[in-house]
Amino acid sequence: MRTYLDCYPCFMRQALDAGRMAGASDDMQHHLLLRTMEHLASLEGTETPPEIGHVIHRMVRRLTGVDDPFREVKAVSTCQALALYPWIKDLVAEAKDSLACAVHLAIAGNIIDFAQTTAPRDQAALRDSVREALASPLTIDDLGILRAALTTTREVLVLADNAGETVFDRVLIEALHDDTTQPLTVRYAVKGAPVLNDATWDDALAAGIDAVAEIVTNGSDAAGTILEDCTAEFREIFERAPLVIAKGQANYETLSEASAPLVFLLRAKCPVIARDVGAPVGSLICEARRIFMGAGG
Amino acid sequence: MRTYLDCYPCFMRQALDAGRMAGASDDMQHHLLLRTMEHLASLEGTETPPEIGHVIHRMVRRLTGVDDPFREVKAVSTCQALALYPWIKDLVAEAKDSLACAVHLAIAGNIIDFAQTTAPRDQAALRDSVREALASPLTIDDLGILRAALTTTREVLVLADNAGETVFDRVLIEALHDDTTQPLTVRYAVKGAPVLNDATWDDALAAGIDAVAEIVTNGSDAAGTILEDCTAEFREIFERAPLVIAKGQANYETLSEASAPLVFLLRAKCPVIARDVGAPVGSLICEARRIFMGAGG
Repeated sequence: MRTYLDCYPCFMRQALDAGRMAGASDDMQHHLLLRTMEHLASLEGTETPPEIGHVIHRMVRRLTGVDDPFREVKAVSTCQALALYPWIKDLVAEAKDSLACAVHLAIAGNIIDFAQTTAPRDQAALRDSVREALASPLTIDDLGILRAALTTTREVLVLADNAGETVFDRVLIEALHDDTTQPLTVRYAVKGAPVLNDATWDDALAAGIDAVAEIVTNGSDAAGTILEDCTAEFREIFERAPLVIAKGQANYETLSEASAPLVFLLRAKCPVIARDVGAPVGSLICEARRIFMGAGG
Repeated sequence: MRTYLDCYPCFMRQALDAGRMAGASDDMQHHLLLRTMEHLASLEGTETPPEIGHVIHRMVRRLTGVDDPFREVKAVSTCQALALYPWIKDLVAEAKDSLACAVHLAIAGNIIDFAQTTAPRDQAALRDSVREALASPLTIDDLGILRAALTTTREVLVLADNAGETVFDRVLIEALHDDTTQPLTVRYAVKGAPVLNDATWDDALAAGIDAVAEIVTNGSDAAGTILEDCTAEFREIFERAPLVIAKGQANYETLSEASAPLVFLLRAKCPVIARDVGAPVGSLICEARRIFMGAGG
């Protein structure tokens, strides 16, 4: 997805928020805004939003000297999501269509913004949020394509988004295993180093992903999946994958034009992304791209 | 009020919105953002937000060649508010405390963002919005101070905010006249030239303000009241006024530190302003500053 002019104010906001999360002083926050504006003024117009965010967040980490401002937030997010795990497992077990339920849950995990606070969250409120997501229709509903692809494929690559959401991804992966009659290899790709509250290796481990998938790192410290910033090893995994499930907005932003068999699972929270997807803000999206039936791996 | 770092992303948003309202091309919108960033990078740190907005909006008007992008929006806003006029007059007439009702209505006029669209607005929805404002308590309630000041003063200066809101101000001014036993001189200050959807002379006339107050211009094309940018004539009116009722956020931003007997009427819509006022976002504010009882003019 290209960067729209509407993203410019948002980058400024992101720089400020990331600086504050890293404990930057007022002067440092001001400096971060000045550096962000310098970068925005130098853009060539071909960058995706996460590519620009990559430069900004790396700059924030370097100048503040805090390499993982979201460490505590991520740990708390995972704990809170794990507390929901038995309940969401029951939801899938009781569902008429367990795959549809698990896909909705995977998007629900993307809806709950675990990163908002490190304070203990009201479990009842979190459950309400999950129930609301389950009751919402998919505005773009390519579940049928995903289901068909799963009947032929023996390998799935899941691209993670945030910590906490990882627990919901685990439930989706468990449903994928249950849904196929043949053994399924699932790889779960996390960031190579911290960026925002995106899941890294430790966050995936804490969510118990290793029990259901092979955790792989993309080697990058950018949000989404900027292939040029990933390791050659990851790029090979990506290019060979017969089915890629990409979670969250940043993966959509970075891969919407990629030539790979993709299913994007996200909530379109940002107006610019919603417009690009072609759905109203707040929509639940399960959108398949470049998946051709019968060509599964 | 000083400018906070949180205002920086908002200035970018304002430049983009104003450019679009003026029909700027994508290239021009990009240019406006670059120029806005240049200006933000050159700030000394002593400017109020409307002082910065002043430079940005003047730049947008100059570069787009559109000197009043909100002309149509303002005309439609005034028409829509005038359609409510008989009904809000009835509300005041039926109220137990007509001044309290009129003050609430004057803030309700500030709540309804008439500038959002030129499309005909649902009158029922507008009435709901007004009723909601009437039912909301004032988070900062200096109505008693305003009431006391009105018993001794014979002159009031009202600083206008947006077109449309002007009709609600007219109802407030009518209530001020009804509330005092002695003849009251009311001056209603509008912008000297267009900025955003702020009321100018024509907008005040269209709202029928001339029937209840002497319309005066502040001579400035900035939002709020930047005294140094106003005419000497207006500054004299301001300095002599024994009671100033200042409408909306921009007047608060520019005059919160002014040495004048002020009553601010606004809804704190912006988180930065709400924090500065010391009230939650969305609060209805009637805040008196530097009004000393018995010193009325």
